[in-house]
Amino acid sequence: MTSIDLNADLGEGFGRWRLTDDEQLLTVVTSANVACGFHAGDPATMRRVCALAAERGVRIGAQVSYRDLAGFGRRAMDVPPAELAAEVAYQIGALEVFARAAGSRVSYVKPHGALYNRVVHDEVQAGAVVDGVLLADPTLPVLGLPGSRLLQLADKAGLPPVTEAFADRAYTDHGTLVPRGRSGAVLCDPEAVVERSLDLARSGQVTAQSGARIAVRARSLCLHGDTPGAVDLARRVRERLETSGVRVEAFV
Amino acid sequence: MTSIDLNADLGEGFGRWRLTDDEQLLTVVTSANVACGFHAGDPATMRRVCALAAERGVRIGAQVSYRDLAGFGRRAMDVPPAELAAEVAYQIGALEVFARAAGSRVSYVKPHGALYNRVVHDEVQAGAVVDGVLLADPTLPVLGLPGSRLLQLADKAGLPPVTEAFADRAYTDHGTLVPRGRSGAVLCDPEAVVERSLDLARSGQVTAQSGARIAVRARSLCLHGDTPGAVDLARRVRERLETSGVRVEAFV
Amino acid sequence: MTSIDLNADLGEGFGRWRLTDDEQLLTVVTSANVACGFHAGDPATMRRVCALAAERGVRIGAQVSYRDLAGFGRRAMDVPPAELAAEVAYQIGALEVFARAAGSRVSYVKPHGALYNRVVHDEVQAGAVVDGVLLADPTLPVLGLPGSRLLQLADKAGLPPVTEAFADRAYTDHGTLVPRGRSGAVLCDPEAVVERSLDLARSGQVTAQSGARIAVRARSLCLHGDTPGAVDLARRVRERLETSGVRVEAFV
Amino acid sequence: MTSIDLNADLGEGFGRWRLTDDEQLLTVVTSANVACGFHAGDPATMRRVCALAAERGVRIGAQVSYRDLAGFGRRAMDVPPAELAAEVAYQIGALEVFARAAGSRVSYVKPHGALYNRVVHDEVQAGAVVDGVLLADPTLPVLGLPGSRLLQLADKAGLPPVTEAFADRAYTDHGTLVPRGRSGAVLCDPEAVVERSLDLARSGQVTAQSGARIAVRARSLCLHGDTPGAVDLARRVRERLETSGVRVEAFV
Repeated sequence: MTSIDLNADLGEGFGRWRLTDDEQLLTVVTSANVACGFHAGDPATMRRVCALAAERGVRIGAQVSYRDLAGFGRRAMDVPPAELAAEVAYQIGALEVFARAAGSRVSYVKPHGALYNRVVHDEVQAGAVVDGVLLADPTLPVLGLPGSRLLQLADKAGLPPVTEAFADRAYTDHGTLVPRGRSGAVLCDPEAVVERSLDLARSGQVTAQSGARIAVRARSLCLHGDTPGAVDLARRVRERLETSGVRVEAFV
Repeated sequence: MTSIDLNADLGEGFGRWRLTDDEQLLTVVTSANVACGFHAGDPATMRRVCALAAERGVRIGAQVSYRDLAGFGRRAMDVPPAELAAEVAYQIGALEVFARAAGSRVSYVKPHGALYNRVVHDEVQAGAVVDGVLLADPTLPVLGLPGSRLLQLADKAGLPPVTEAFADRAYTDHGTLVPRGRSGAVLCDPEAVVERSLDLARSGQVTAQSGARIAVRARSLCLHGDTPGAVDLARRVRERLETSGVRVEAFV
Repeated sequence: MTSIDLNADLGEGFGRWRLTDDEQLLTVVTSANVACGFHAGDPATMRRVCALAAERGVRIGAQVSYRDLAGFGRRAMDVPPAELAAEVAYQIGALEVFARAAGSRVSYVKPHGALYNRVVHDEVQAGAVVDGVLLADPTLPVLGLPGSRLLQLADKAGLPPVTEAFADRAYTDHGTLVPRGRSGAVLCDPEAVVERSLDLARSGQVTAQSGARIAVRARSLCLHGDTPGAVDLARRVRERLETSGVRVEAFV
Repeated sequence: MTSIDLNADLGEGFGRWRLTDDEQLLTVVTSANVACGFHAGDPATMRRVCALAAERGVRIGAQVSYRDLAGFGRRAMDVPPAELAAEVAYQIGALEVFARAAGSRVSYVKPHGALYNRVVHDEVQAGAVVDGVLLADPTLPVLGLPGSRLLQLADKAGLPPVTEAFADRAYTDHGTLVPRGRSGAVLCDPEAVVERSLDLARSGQVTAQSGARIAVRARSLCLHGDTPGAVDLARRVRERLETSGVRVEAFV
């Protein structure tokens, strides 16, 4: 029987500001990418999200980012690798406290925003993220794009690489994402997203923008939590998967 | 044989800025209060200081603070207790990563600056600091002023309270510190500081500003690391203690 | 004919986060308290809000705060007066750029959150805020609570004091606000808020929690912009005032 | 008679941290690049430096930066142009308050660190910096590298471009700086720096690393203030210039 993990970014508020409906999303996803304070995520929110996630059996992951509250971690930064590695480790350690206090633990790492995109190709920063994870815990899985430098270097370093796909993004024939800003880059029709999720989970393939069928091997599907209707869409995706015989569960 | 611990604040730079001569101070003290990023202490500095401390067998403590880089944690803040507890835990967790990566661990907690002063009397914030430490690790000793609410509540919660004294500060007849700003509050004569250190370690007493002898039971002496001549003075204190038969060692 | 000013806090997002519906509120209020970056308000948002305000003829005020993004400026801080004065001036200057670029200018100052409450009684911080305003512009009106130290010191320094009232807050018999957290401190019934606004504008009086009628001389009414239904309520207040013959206009 | 301006970065501390000896440097330079809070420079420091500069007749410039205290503005960031323009304007406005309060005004703008280097070639960010300056004041001169995109776009926009040279940096045959990190990129011999300063001021030329003589037209020389011996070196440069008949004065 096919199974797939559903992950979403959570705890992406800061102090007075809220972005994601953490409580509802935690009834849907199996892996929670919890913001660790560098692009979002104050300590009290981190604690609350970890407690809820643990209570519901949702796996907790550290969503590590550039230090950039003003830009929400969406602006690429030329951080020297030693600094970046230390910043990654710092974030993981901070989250670990709340995960453990909730009776759980940080069980994977996923870079956020501009850092996520950068380590697809940037050898130095990808290596720094891996170094940061190794500093914190040399057994932690790393979640990222199939074929990314990050996953290659993680694998080499003994950190289990976990691939993910995006049900609401258009793909090129090479299996990469059509960049945001290009026409059709983001799928807006909920039904299309739901169908694509099922397709990805069952066939390990997706229909590219060109119409070609391409392989996208993903152990996890990333759902977006910060858009209007996000919770409803996430719920529909999960229901369709389950009613179609796909088991929704955290990756091992 | 009498023994005493020597502690100092370390790693109190941030990015480009440096304040303390960490390398030299780590040849003198037995306990390093490492800044955790809220009043000072970027991740790369935290990593470096932990590595040096571990290498030299110096115990690593989390110097937790209000979130206030601009004020160096010296401005009291009315942080609600749930936020403060989470902020304390966050800082301990972040430091723990670097302590463990260096083969050591965070083995005590000491509040910094305005938070240190606040929790002498403030029941609510003292309780919040204790809650934060409990979240991170319910066995961690807490370093503070004898008789402070912090140490009382730590004790009650099962966190070993560790008392400290200040060799360069004047005391009142009640055993409290003469507030900075008052005449004679800070001892400037190095020889006087050295003698006072020995007196504190051997007799458990100090001569108050009034001339009266008062009891100050301290398992640790706090040395300042951010003043000119700090390293030399620290070295002289340690030498005098050792040549006088006081064993300088981390508190158990 | 009676007239009154309506003010609200605007631009209280930061980067990715939004809080207030600036565009709609600017169709209702006559004075916009624009966040200046210390508790909220990134530069791009400040620019946008100033442009909209200028376009609609809404007066721009600097909503100055403690430096506290994580606490949204709601945590009182013991900032030394020289630092506080400089921080206040810094915020005013930063906003002035965007006000002028939009063809308008900063035409008053209002402290935010914990600073607002602190300067009701705190002589030193009230004086520091006044000093900060004087540094920036010795002709700027200051908006605050009737009877506050801030307005007294502003007046003495030649800065026009402007009083405000809160239509959605309960008052004590002394004309001060019933502290948040006490029962009935915040009025939740929209109709009651609307009626109270009209009462305040026309009679200069309000019914205190005890039932007593007390004088609350206010040249401006503060409307809240960050609650659900805020825009609708603000609109109803304005309509009731106008249909009842109260002219809604910025204070001179 | 030949004349040249001497500029240096000042006020580059933050809160408790100091970097530059502002008081001494202000006895030497004719233009002070004052940090505006984004890479360094708290408001109280900005105020103090502006007061000193005005007192000594030193021209005040806004040293604008990426928002990056942790990296001291030395990490390139992909800031979208609208955000960058607003951030630049914000910093200029904040500094303007303190310049005016001191009886002076912001009379030029110079980007700092990674932003300085980025706008040598990056069309979009150079344009954003120009837009930010225009927002604040459409008459402000912009200080930068000869031939940089920044100066070209400033010129086109009506902002007077002002060229500068570095007396302690090696040049390529193309008149660009040998990148830091390459052998010989930074001149360490004080006498060589002094001679080079005089050469630049008198001949408008410099001897490149290859030995070739190249033209470097500079109306200002940048002196570094954050290295040991910086003040002495700056003083020697100024003395040599003056005793050799070069007038040291702010650019018009």
